[in-house]
Amino acid sequence: MTQPVIGTPWKKLDAPVSSEELEGVEKYWRCANYLSVGQIYLRSNPLMRKDFVDEKTGEVRDFGRPDVKHRLVGHWGTTPGVNFLFGHVNRLIADHQQNAIFLMGPGHGGPAGTAQSLLDGTYREIRPDITNDEAGLQKFFRQFSYPGGIPSHFAPETPGSIHEGGELGYTLSHAYGAVMDNPSLLAVAVVGDGESETGPLATSWQSNKLVNPKTDGIVLPILHLNGYKIANPTILARISDEELTKFFEGMGYEPHFFVAGFDNEPHSSIHRRFADLFEEVFNKICDIKARAEAGDETRPVYPMIVFRTPKGWTCPKHIDGKKTEGSWRAHQVPLASAKDTHEHFRVLRSWLRSYKPEELFTPEGQIRPEVTSFMPAGDLRIGANPNANGGKVRHELTLPDIHAHEVPVAEKGHGWGATEAARVFGAYTADVMELNDDFRIFGPDETASNRLQDAYKVTRKQWDGGYYADADNDELLAPTGRVVEQLSEHQCEGFLEAYTLTGRHGVWSSYESFVHIVDSMVNQHCKWLEACVREIPWRAPISGLNILLSSHVWRQDHNGFSHQDPGFVDLLLNKANDTHVVNAYYPCDANMALAVAERAYTSTNCVNAIFCGKQPAPTFITVDEARAELEEGLAEWKWASSASSLDEADLVIASCGDVPTLEALAALDMLKKIGVKATFVNVVDLLKIKSVAENNQAISNERFAEFFGANKPVLFCFHAYAGTIHRLIWDRPNHDNFRVHGYEEKGSTTTPFDMLRLNNMDRWALAADALRMVDAQRWAAQIEEWENFRQEAFQFAVDEGYDHPAFTSWVWPDAAAASEGQLSATQMTAGDNE
Amino acid sequence: MTQPVIGTPWKKLDAPVSSEELEGVEKYWRCANYLSVGQIYLRSNPLMRKDFVDEKTGEVRDFGRPDVKHRLVGHWGTTPGVNFLFGHVNRLIADHQQNAIFLMGPGHGGPAGTAQSLLDGTYREIRPDITNDEAGLQKFFRQFSYPGGIPSHFAPETPGSIHEGGELGYTLSHAYGAVMDNPSLLAVAVVGDGESETGPLATSWQSNKLVNPKTDGIVLPILHLNGYKIANPTILARISDEELTKFFEGMGYEPHFFVAGFDNEPHSSIHRRFADLFEEVFNKICDIKARAEAGDETRPVYPMIVFRTPKGWTCPKHIDGKKTEGSWRAHQVPLASAKDTHEHFRVLRSWLRSYKPEELFTPEGQIRPEVTSFMPAGDLRIGANPNANGGKVRHELTLPDIHAHEVPVAEKGHGWGATEAARVFGAYTADVMELNDDFRIFGPDETASNRLQDAYKVTRKQWDGGYYADADNDELLAPTGRVVEQLSEHQCEGFLEAYTLTGRHGVWSSYESFVHIVDSMVNQHCKWLEACVREIPWRAPISGLNILLSSHVWRQDHNGFSHQDPGFVDLLLNKANDTHVVNAYYPCDANMALAVAERAYTSTNCVNAIFCGKQPAPTFITVDEARAELEEGLAEWKWASSASSLDEADLVIASCGDVPTLEALAALDMLKKIGVKATFVNVVDLLKIKSVAENNQAISNERFAEFFGANKPVLFCFHAYAGTIHRLIWDRPNHDNFRVHGYEEKGSTTTPFDMLRLNNMDRWALAADALRMVDAQRWAAQIEEWENFRQEAFQFAVDEGYDHPAFTSWVWPDAAAASEGQLSATQMTAGDNE
Repeated sequence: MTQPVIGTPWKKLDAPVSSEELEGVEKYWRCANYLSVGQIYLRSNPLMRKDFVDEKTGEVRDFGRPDVKHRLVGHWGTTPGVNFLFGHVNRLIADHQQNAIFLMGPGHGGPAGTAQSLLDGTYREIRPDITNDEAGLQKFFRQFSYPGGIPSHFAPETPGSIHEGGELGYTLSHAYGAVMDNPSLLAVAVVGDGESETGPLATSWQSNKLVNPKTDGIVLPILHLNGYKIANPTILARISDEELTKFFEGMGYEPHFFVAGFDNEPHSSIHRRFADLFEEVFNKICDIKARAEAGDETRPVYPMIVFRTPKGWTCPKHIDGKKTEGSWRAHQVPLASAKDTHEHFRVLRSWLRSYKPEELFTPEGQIRPEVTSFMPAGDLRIGANPNANGGKVRHELTLPDIHAHEVPVAEKGHGWGATEAARVFGAYTADVMELNDDFRIFGPDETASNRLQDAYKVTRKQWDGGYYADADNDELLAPTGRVVEQLSEHQCEGFLEAYTLTGRHGVWSSYESFVHIVDSMVNQHCKWLEACVREIPWRAPISGLNILLSSHVWRQDHNGFSHQDPGFVDLLLNKANDTHVVNAYYPCDANMALAVAERAYTSTNCVNAIFCGKQPAPTFITVDEARAELEEGLAEWKWASSASSLDEADLVIASCGDVPTLEALAALDMLKKIGVKATFVNVVDLLKIKSVAENNQAISNERFAEFFGANKPVLFCFHAYAGTIHRLIWDRPNHDNFRVHGYEEKGSTTTPFDMLRLNNMDRWALAADALRMVDAQRWAAQIEEWENFRQEAFQFAVDEGYDHPAFTSWVWPDAAAASEGQLSATQMTAGDNE
Repeated sequence: MTQPVIGTPWKKLDAPVSSEELEGVEKYWRCANYLSVGQIYLRSNPLMRKDFVDEKTGEVRDFGRPDVKHRLVGHWGTTPGVNFLFGHVNRLIADHQQNAIFLMGPGHGGPAGTAQSLLDGTYREIRPDITNDEAGLQKFFRQFSYPGGIPSHFAPETPGSIHEGGELGYTLSHAYGAVMDNPSLLAVAVVGDGESETGPLATSWQSNKLVNPKTDGIVLPILHLNGYKIANPTILARISDEELTKFFEGMGYEPHFFVAGFDNEPHSSIHRRFADLFEEVFNKICDIKARAEAGDETRPVYPMIVFRTPKGWTCPKHIDGKKTEGSWRAHQVPLASAKDTHEHFRVLRSWLRSYKPEELFTPEGQIRPEVTSFMPAGDLRIGANPNANGGKVRHELTLPDIHAHEVPVAEKGHGWGATEAARVFGAYTADVMELNDDFRIFGPDETASNRLQDAYKVTRKQWDGGYYADADNDELLAPTGRVVEQLSEHQCEGFLEAYTLTGRHGVWSSYESFVHIVDSMVNQHCKWLEACVREIPWRAPISGLNILLSSHVWRQDHNGFSHQDPGFVDLLLNKANDTHVVNAYYPCDANMALAVAERAYTSTNCVNAIFCGKQPAPTFITVDEARAELEEGLAEWKWASSASSLDEADLVIASCGDVPTLEALAALDMLKKIGVKATFVNVVDLLKIKSVAENNQAISNERFAEFFGANKPVLFCFHAYAGTIHRLIWDRPNHDNFRVHGYEEKGSTTTPFDMLRLNNMDRWALAADALRMVDAQRWAAQIEEWENFRQEAFQFAVDEGYDHPAFTSWVWPDAAAASEGQLSATQMTAGDNE
């Protein structure tokens, strides 16, 4: 396995935590709180000097309202609790030399993350402009939530983060994905009580059935209850401890409750109590690891912590006579008028002073060594842990030759055979998994249905959720394996995000319609990558996130209308910009699927959506032809074109997507027979046809015109909604002559032909429309004949319950000679789909 | 309250369930199973006659392989369990005369739903072509999953359904939404064990903290455990009963376990056990209702049922020597070769015969009266319950006059004031709630943050999740209320979907970025509505589903990049077709927000997305002007245009969205001062500018040209991504002369001006670009000056921490005279946002 093992993990202490260390933690906490309040409120005079030299007037003056930011932007509420936990996690890491990362579910606690990395030294390593003096401290404060500065969350800009926490719900999915195949790693995952109300988070507690304590690391969830979201109570904060206990026990955890901050208990006592609890919990984790390593395969009961503290802990108890600490009023910026009124400023000043900055900073603005002396060093620092900068530990995959799985088109002719492209993709992926132990497949119960089942030749479905005595049913399950299935697209996406963010590789599969379930997650992952590409050079590139959409719209004839939606690409297009973090691939057949797999498995810093059918279909091009087409993004298929050049052609027929390609070729065949000539273009990499003004990797307008002409009619047969093409080619040459056929939002549970017919994507509709574009009047009779035939073919399906032979038996002429292995191109194999 | 109370609900029985009834239930179950197998497998000879007259050959022949469908499409696995439950729910309804609906989470159990409505008589009422004889039965079987037939799910086409179960995860959200303000209603919600792994479902168990047993109905969840998804075990099916018990107790339920089908227990015994359990559970529900009605406000422990039966229950135990009943192999079509091989056909025949159809049907093909005599009648029938056809009970809202909230633009001048448009929308909504008790607001803790807080003048946040002693914090909570908050966009969307599907009205609010969390749900709701509009006349129109997006991309300067995504509209556009089920409204100001609210609250069978800011901003037009503009979808603002006609204009400036409108007007003001003339067009109803070939409600091309000219440059300032406009106007007159500014996927936590600058949407960028379009060479110096000023203004923000006065103090000249109440138009009120 490729992940770094730092120190010797999972070692218990042989003595209680020392008081000196806890004094360090207390100083850390005060310092981090001071740094957090400073980031939210202060633009200057970070040490609250009486003799501060005003940068504008040059006058010497006391700490005052001019030092407060004009715009107070940030969130205090969750921050002090997160600071407290950071302090204790630092202590634990240092004492145990434990490889650990920290996931901050409450993303609004961003000031805590930057404070942490300032304190552990990593922040100044990546940002040498934040000097270790008063000026650097001022810059650190001012830049927070500031034009040209840094974001307010635990964002990619923060060292040590793999989880921004902007959108809520994925902390545990990320934590569990990070520890998979990472046996030395402890992932401390703080879940906010607001986040705990989301659906994705609610199901992610159950991830403990999908990991193995021997071969994976350990997730320690800490539920941070402070009673409120913005202004409303939270469910888990308000139900009884008895219900909470049952809830977590029911999901296989042992909850440990920690309550602090509601009385006058001295901080030293609070730290002692928490350190003792943390050691108790960590010892239980060590026991779990030891038992697992000794061969015990029973699912352990994992400890977790319920951490109940006041919202805004340590801020003023009341402001303007209203309860603030422990109230929803502490959520954002409790002192909104700190710049405008002296009354609020005085409260702010007292609040800052309560942390005793003079004990934390030297007069020059350096953090005093006694604040940080207890903290870990080197790669064990939270901000430096390589697992949180996965590109640094990522290895390129060892990739087998895709030719090994090539469908023999060169010998058998273009359009030969009846191959499930996704199954070939899966066979190649299995080979990749055999050669690389840092590659995983995730699936919402669709791994086999989506044709990736060859993976089971080299690994198993990882499952610790209980087995039935009847082994027949559970044969593919094992406590360790690199296929993970849960009927939750959120979990699949979240696991794989974290697996790649920590330096590994993988793919997950989804129904094309239901990948919309993770639209927002994909958006957020893209945004993370965009930020990295644009402005975070110290984050090394991570593997592309691969999504296989093999149960796609055109062959959801058996599942019906709810399962028919090809619109995911439109979501992706909103993230297609100069950062190149998205790719949309539409392989035409099995050999192209191989070429796309090869491309996807070597890509970095991107999301690859691969729209690739799983039903038997002909293969049109060789692997080498596929590679060449993929290189440019599209190709003219000269063997298919019935015109030797654009000049000679009556029109251009273009396709993007496997089913539209088959129908477009069949239409071209019909047109050829009546003497209408067309060139044929296939598009695999959709973004390559995008406006070159919007995509500097797109083909040039000159090249575009070589494919699509300057004034020829273009019949474009597209997998998804037609509007997508119009959006892409709006300023391309000849764009006004494009007629686009796409999914028209029609369908039901019906036959494959009927799905096409309903959406005017069947070959007869396409051919008739081509004639309309060429010369509607001249071809009126032929158009009518084809339109009539479509209705006849539909009536045939209604009468017989299967599709007309003219539809199911058609093969491309090149392949007709090769009879062996030839199945009808659109043969329906009901029974093996979800 | 407007919902129908059928009979006297919540009455206990005074005697055990009679054996006669249970014999009826057994017959129902066998008959429903027979009807289900028949739907999946049979195309003819539905009574398995020996003397069937073959429709093709005319010959008399025995039941045989010709009677089997060619394409076997459907799902058996979950169906028999659902049939069993349908039978018992029918019995319970009849015995108690209880108002009840049935939600089928496992949507693949579709055959059970159609069988149910055939048995309760409703199917033949809506489909008189399914005659009550052998021919009707044959048609009923054949149409299932068939070209021109019906879908395979519990779809809108099925009477009694409000939940398709195609996409999984929302059964309980829908059930809880249905019972809100519906105190007589029992919602029996069957959750599949596959679905139970999804995130949305996992959190929806907690909905019992958001209802009140006195004023709302009761949800009875039945977790249907059969051990497998498609081919993989499920978590809840495999953990121990002890863990399951704690899990549900922890969420406030009392689980009742029922296990059957794994041994040779006679059906009569199984039915008796289940009926007894069902009565026990129902009695507990009656007690909960009685206690609540007596004034007890403590949250009750609600009963739920864990229903553990074999997957594919009652199908052949083994097929081809492999375990089938109780195995994943029963998921879809267990006998894939029933048409092709006599061996499989024989198994199918025996399977069908095992239900003893001769006892269930007359020789003429009518269902025997003893099968259905125990079932409820009239509106109590599951297929006929008006709550499942909400349009039938829907009342039009009583709407107050929107003028009551009008911002006085007529007196104060165009562009006057600093009004939060969303707050005005909220004030009007509060009035609507005062006049109508069937209107609810849902929010992921954003009701106040999103400016709908005036609702608390007329109602409370409904909360049964526990209160703190400190009343100050919980003042807006109450056991009964019509605002529901949970930090789960899934729950908000799901509750409101069900609330409208059962005939009521409402709105929910989301951050624009995070509404993507429910992309897939919105897709599915649109698909439901599309089907209803296209082909289900018996479903009366339901209220529009209103989504307020007041925390939108342009004013997420304080929350950062993760919170900035305006792409939801692109998802909606994929559902914009001849069914008109989506609307995208971009009100320019508070008065337009009122006009849009009025429109949305009277709309039916649609989703209304309302992109409406919540920050103080000027108001440009009167309510009457807004109404007129909304009527056509767009308007030229002649008071703003600096050209008296298109002929005179150098260009057209157009805007869509509140912030772009403000910037576009400011740019126009700058251009006017240097003598460049423009007409000004504002678009509020985005779909009205869509290609008229694609939208028969769009404005004509002639009208389009009146607004945008035939060859004038058009500077279009759009709220979301620019590509969206290109997609809409691709074949409109003058489309090649449009230059679109939109969100360019740039941003961080910064200032309002900097957000605009980063995306080239600030007035200086717009004005400079307008000059480039008019005459770049002539205006080169002016362009450079404005471009330079942008950088200066940015530097000012960096230096000072707030935006340049030229940005924050600009007001439209018309409004300048009115000084009172005038605030800077883009004043930043940090501190009151999430």
